[in-house]
Amino acid sequence: MGKRIVVALGGNALGNTPEEQLKLVKETAKPIVDLVEKGYDVIIGHGNGPQVGMINLAMEFSANKGGNTPYMPFPECGAMTQGYIGYHLQQAIQAELKARGIRKACATVVTQVVVDKADPGFAKPTKPVGSFYSKEEADAITAEKGFIFVEDAGRGYRRVVPSPIPQRIVELDIVEQLVSAGVIVITVGGGGIPVVETDEGLEGVAAVIDKDRASALLARDVKADELIILTAVDRVCINFNKPDQKELPSMTLAEAEEYIGQGQFAPGSMLPKVQSCMDFVKGNTNGGVALITSLTRAAEALEGKTGTVIQP
Amino acid sequence: MGKRIVVALGGNALGNTPEEQLKLVKETAKPIVDLVEKGYDVIIGHGNGPQVGMINLAMEFSANKGGNTPYMPFPECGAMTQGYIGYHLQQAIQAELKARGIRKACATVVTQVVVDKADPGFAKPTKPVGSFYSKEEADAITAEKGFIFVEDAGRGYRRVVPSPIPQRIVELDIVEQLVSAGVIVITVGGGGIPVVETDEGLEGVAAVIDKDRASALLARDVKADELIILTAVDRVCINFNKPDQKELPSMTLAEAEEYIGQGQFAPGSMLPKVQSCMDFVKGNTNGGVALITSLTRAAEALEGKTGTVIQP
Repeated sequence: MGKRIVVALGGNALGNTPEEQLKLVKETAKPIVDLVEKGYDVIIGHGNGPQVGMINLAMEFSANKGGNTPYMPFPECGAMTQGYIGYHLQQAIQAELKARGIRKACATVVTQVVVDKADPGFAKPTKPVGSFYSKEEADAITAEKGFIFVEDAGRGYRRVVPSPIPQRIVELDIVEQLVSAGVIVITVGGGGIPVVETDEGLEGVAAVIDKDRASALLARDVKADELIILTAVDRVCINFNKPDQKELPSMTLAEAEEYIGQGQFAPGSMLPKVQSCMDFVKGNTNGGVALITSLTRAAEALEGKTGTVIQP
Repeated sequence: MGKRIVVALGGNALGNTPEEQLKLVKETAKPIVDLVEKGYDVIIGHGNGPQVGMINLAMEFSANKGGNTPYMPFPECGAMTQGYIGYHLQQAIQAELKARGIRKACATVVTQVVVDKADPGFAKPTKPVGSFYSKEEADAITAEKGFIFVEDAGRGYRRVVPSPIPQRIVELDIVEQLVSAGVIVITVGGGGIPVVETDEGLEGVAAVIDKDRASALLARDVKADELIILTAVDRVCINFNKPDQKELPSMTLAEAEEYIGQGQFAPGSMLPKVQSCMDFVKGNTNGGVALITSLTRAAEALEGKTGTVIQP
C-alpha cells in the first residue's frame, strides 16, 4: 500500500461553464495522476461554489419565471454538482491514467456530510446563494419559505445560508473500502451534501460546508499521510500583496496561530485553508503532514521544492 | 456471501418534484431493505426520465430566457440526476436500515455507460427531450448545434436523442468491489451517463440509455442470481387491457419471443423490460433468474407468490 493523500481541489481546477470545466479537468487530471505515479493512494475533495451557484440560479429562474419546473432545494442542488463535477473529473482522470498506461480505477461517491443543528453558523448565515431580489420579493419569500436575505452591496437582496463545521462523513466507510482496493476516489464534493441527524434519519439542510474543512476531516478519518490543499498560489504568504510580502516554506502550529492573530490570512480565502491544515495536523495521530500549494506544482511541493508545509 | 440481486427501479419509485421524490423514496426503501433482510446483496439501477427532463428544461429555460446561466449539455444533465436521485435514495435506504437495526452501508457511484458510436439508434433518434420550439426556433438551433427536432403531436418541435444499446459499464469494477464488501450500491442511474470511446478517452453523448437494459447488462456482469425489474404492475400480461387479459406467472424465452412477435408488449414500456430480462437470462452463465413485478411486492415475487419469471 502506498501513502495516502487527500487532495482538496479549488475552484481554479474546475470552470464556470460545462465546456470550460471539461477542458480544465483535463489539465487538473495531470498533476493528480502525477501523484498516482509517485505511488500515492489519492482521494480527491473539491469545491462547487460556481457550479452550485449556477445550478441553483437556473433552477430558481426556471421555477420563478415560467419555466414550469419545480423549486429545487439547496442541498439537492449540491447533490447535482457532485454528479456533474464528479463525472467530468473521473472521466478526465480515467483518460489520463489510460494515456500513461496505468491500470487504476477512479470513481465518484455521492457524499453526505453531517453538520450540527446547534452549529453557531445556523444562527448567523453568511454565504450568499441564488438570485438578487427586491426588498419586497425577498420579504415575500421569507414569509413563504423562511429564508434569510441580506442586502448585497447595493445590488439587491440575496439569500444567505450558513457555513457550519463538518462533523462526520456519512459515506466514509465506502471511501475507505475503495481506497484500500486501490481506487482513486472523488468525494465530499462541494464540502459534501450538508445533512443533520434527526430521529427519522439524515435530512438535507441549506448550507455550504467549506470544502477544505471537509477535506481535512476526510484526511483525518482515512488516516492520510498528507493533506494537500490546492489553490491559486504556490505558497502561503504573509504581508500578502504588500511590499514586504514573504512566502512561507513552512509554518508550525504556533506560528500559524500567531499569523492568524495578526490577521495575515483573508477570511473565506487563505484563512480556512490554513485552519483546515491545522485541524488535520492536530487531529491526526500518525504524523500526517499538511501542505498548501498550487495545482500545477503539487508533485514538486511533495518533494519539498515549493508549497507551504504546516507541521506540529 | 448472499445471493446477488439487481433491482431496476421505475419512475413510480421516484417522483416529479424534489418533495415528492423525498417522500416516495422512503416508501421505495422499504421493499429494498426487505430484500436485504432476506439476505440478498442488493444493487440498484434506476430511471431518470422525469428528473433529467426537469433539469434539462430548467437549464435550457434559464440559458435561453435571460437567467444568465450557461447551456448545459444532455449527458451533464444526466450526471446531475445521478447525484440528485442517488442522494435521496441512499439517504432513505440508510434511514430504513438504521430503523431496522441493520448495519449496512449504501452508496451511489456516478456511473458512465459506453455506447457504440455505430449504434443504429444514432441514425434515427427517437427520445424527445427538452422544450417545445416553433419550426423557426428549431431550425435555428439545428443550424447552431446540429440537434435533430421532430414535430410533436401538434404541440411544436422538440429535440430527439437516440436510445442506443448499453455496451459496457465503465465503473463496473467499483460496483463489484463495493458489493463484495457488503455495500448496497446505487448505479447506472438513468441507464448511466452515455459515453462513447474516443482516442482521447470517453466522451459524453446526448442519448438516453434504457435503464432496464443497463440494469440487465449490470446483472450479467456482476453475475447476479436475480434481475428484478420493478414497474407499476404485479405481473406481465398478455392481451393487456382487453377482456381476455391474462397475467403471466412465467415465460420461457421461446414464449417471450412468440408474445413479442404478436405485439403483446408496448414498445417503450413493457417490451424493453421483457427484452432486458431475456438478455440477462440468455447472457448469464450461472443460472440467474429474471423477474418483472411491482415495487411493493418484490419480496413476495421472490418467493414465487407473484411476478412474472422469465426463464430459459
